[in-house]
Amino acid sequence: MAKRLIPLFNRVLVEKIIPPSKTTTGILLPEKSSKLNSGKVLAVGPGIHSNDGKLVPVTVKEGDTVLLPEYGGTEVKLDNKEYHLYRDDDILGTLHD
Amino acid sequence: MAKRLIPLFNRVLVEKIIPPSKTTTGILLPEKSSKLNSGKVLAVGPGIHSNDGKLVPVTVKEGDTVLLPEYGGTEVKLDNKEYHLYRDDDILGTLHD
Amino acid sequence: MAKRLIPLFNRVLVEKIIPPSKTTTGILLPEKSSKLNSGKVLAVGPGIHSNDGKLVPVTVKEGDTVLLPEYGGTEVKLDNKEYHLYRDDDILGTLHD
Amino acid sequence: MAKRLIPLFNRVLVEKIIPPSKTTTGILLPEKSSKLNSGKVLAVGPGIHSNDGKLVPVTVKEGDTVLLPEYGGTEVKLDNKEYHLYRDDDILGTLHD
Amino acid sequence: MAKRLIPLFNRVLVEKIIPPSKTTTGILLPEKSSKLNSGKVLAVGPGIHSNDGKLVPVTVKEGDTVLLPEYGGTEVKLDNKEYHLYRDDDILGTLHD
Amino acid sequence: MAKRLIPLFNRVLVEKIIPPSKTTTGILLPEKSSKLNSGKVLAVGPGIHSNDGKLVPVTVKEGDTVLLPEYGGTEVKLDNKEYHLYRDDDILGTLHD
Amino acid sequence: MAKRLIPLFNRVLVEKIIPPSKTTTGILLPEKSSKLNSGKVLAVGPGIHSNDGKLVPVTVKEGDTVLLPEYGGTEVKLDNKEYHLYRDDDILGTLHD
Repeated sequence: MAKRLIPLFNRVLVEKIIPPSKTTTGILLPEKSSKLNSGKVLAVGPGIHSNDGKLVPVTVKEGDTVLLPEYGGTEVKLDNKEYHLYRDDDILGTLHD
Repeated sequence: MAKRLIPLFNRVLVEKIIPPSKTTTGILLPEKSSKLNSGKVLAVGPGIHSNDGKLVPVTVKEGDTVLLPEYGGTEVKLDNKEYHLYRDDDILGTLHD
Repeated sequence: MAKRLIPLFNRVLVEKIIPPSKTTTGILLPEKSSKLNSGKVLAVGPGIHSNDGKLVPVTVKEGDTVLLPEYGGTEVKLDNKEYHLYRDDDILGTLHD
Repeated sequence: MAKRLIPLFNRVLVEKIIPPSKTTTGILLPEKSSKLNSGKVLAVGPGIHSNDGKLVPVTVKEGDTVLLPEYGGTEVKLDNKEYHLYRDDDILGTLHD
Repeated sequence: MAKRLIPLFNRVLVEKIIPPSKTTTGILLPEKSSKLNSGKVLAVGPGIHSNDGKLVPVTVKEGDTVLLPEYGGTEVKLDNKEYHLYRDDDILGTLHD
Repeated sequence: MAKRLIPLFNRVLVEKIIPPSKTTTGILLPEKSSKLNSGKVLAVGPGIHSNDGKLVPVTVKEGDTVLLPEYGGTEVKLDNKEYHLYRDDDILGTLHD
Repeated sequence: MAKRLIPLFNRVLVEKIIPPSKTTTGILLPEKSSKLNSGKVLAVGPGIHSNDGKLVPVTVKEGDTVLLPEYGGTEVKLDNKEYHLYRDDDILGTLHD
């Protein structure tokens, strides 16, 4: 039975996007250029309480493509697949085509 | 007489789930794969006060299955059984089948 | 004349419970198992003010049996007896039979 | 397909302005003098929540020319072009002709 | 002319009580037992402002006998007599016969 | 075209006052005495938001002569002239004849 | 022209009182005893804003004699005279005959 993880507080569950090493027409991409550390948001926590008790929701939502920081994130293995948990305010931005 | 522990503040009492090393049909599971650091919530504290005195309750509840961080947690021995106390905001998420 | 100590702020005065090394029927208890770091609450302070000046009372009360952290606590000698002062939020939980 | 990045929280996406090493009439500028660490604002995040949950917007806006600190900033490569992300309160000021 | 010191903020002026090394009937007290680090409150400051500007008064008052922490306190010499200034929240508790 | 810098947040743009090494009648001033680390305020930022989102303006204004701390300040070169940026709360005071 | 300094925020301008090394009748005072680190308040800043934007004024006023901490304070030379700037909450108390 597959396990589903619902993050707590302002955590965000992300599946990293492994950039293709070749273009669609098969040309090898230079190693450095294709390395955009991004991922897909699978689930978000409810958010965290501000100092005076108000709940501040997470700013990204399920399905967003996000730009991830170079470091940080907690690796989580579920049913042999690798995911990462980030705090909402560590995620740099959302990516749009 | 068995001892019952009611956590204080935003602490959560957890009994770790020891993942089976074999499948139900007896096949040895690869050592790394089955190691999901999870546990069952046995009891929760009342929560903590926000800066302006409002009580912010704990986000998990008794009976939840939770994903635990790799480090942290306070080991507690009660009637020769081992439990762990975590702060609510150290728990990564809730696990659902 | 015996001295009585009333703690200040969110401090809690505790008398440690020294676990019996033998069972009631005289059997020597294994050294490790009986070591539950617990104590009896003798007196509590009024609590501390939240950031906006509201008084947040201490969560434990006189007579409670409490589970103490492995480290911390201030040793206090009154009339040759040994007591310990803990901050309210360092106490792990309350113990109940 | 070009990628567009919308920063999160109080982050600001900046494209650095590379100062000309020669004047418009071709005279070589002394190396030190032309080095104003500045850039163009391409996009801004929504801002961050104050302690009591109010959203405090970012103080610069798209199109502003800004003076950048000597250190800090996160390098981001999008479609082989180099940009930098700064937190709003690390940006020193806005430049005006 | 004797100098009088009125403490500022949440400071408390204390005169340490030097415990007698002998009982009233002259018996030498064991060195360790009589060492209760206590003192008499001579004067208190007005208190400190909470984060939202409310004045939180000092919790002890002139004439109280207080239990002092092992370390800390600022030594003050006035008219050749030695006193100590403590912050209100460093004082452990009040002592009562 | 000259560049004008408008500081952000609670930053203050200052042009340092270089104290004369001679008196108006030409007498050499002792090196140590004339060294008052002061400057003229050229521009101020809008201020910073308090914890609950209110804007707290900068306390000095354009044209003030200010006493600067011995250390700190960010050097800024604009059109080959040297200025310094200070945070409002690092400036010691205003100087008046 | 003499310079006048008005402190900013919660700073206090103090002129140290150099204790006499002899009594009024000329008797040499023991070196240690006369060393009360005190001073006269010449000017005070407006105070600082609490977290929710209210101005909290300085607690001492011009003309007060104050007890100064052993360390700290910023030395300021104005017209060849030496003064010191202290933060209001670093001043220990006010001295009264």
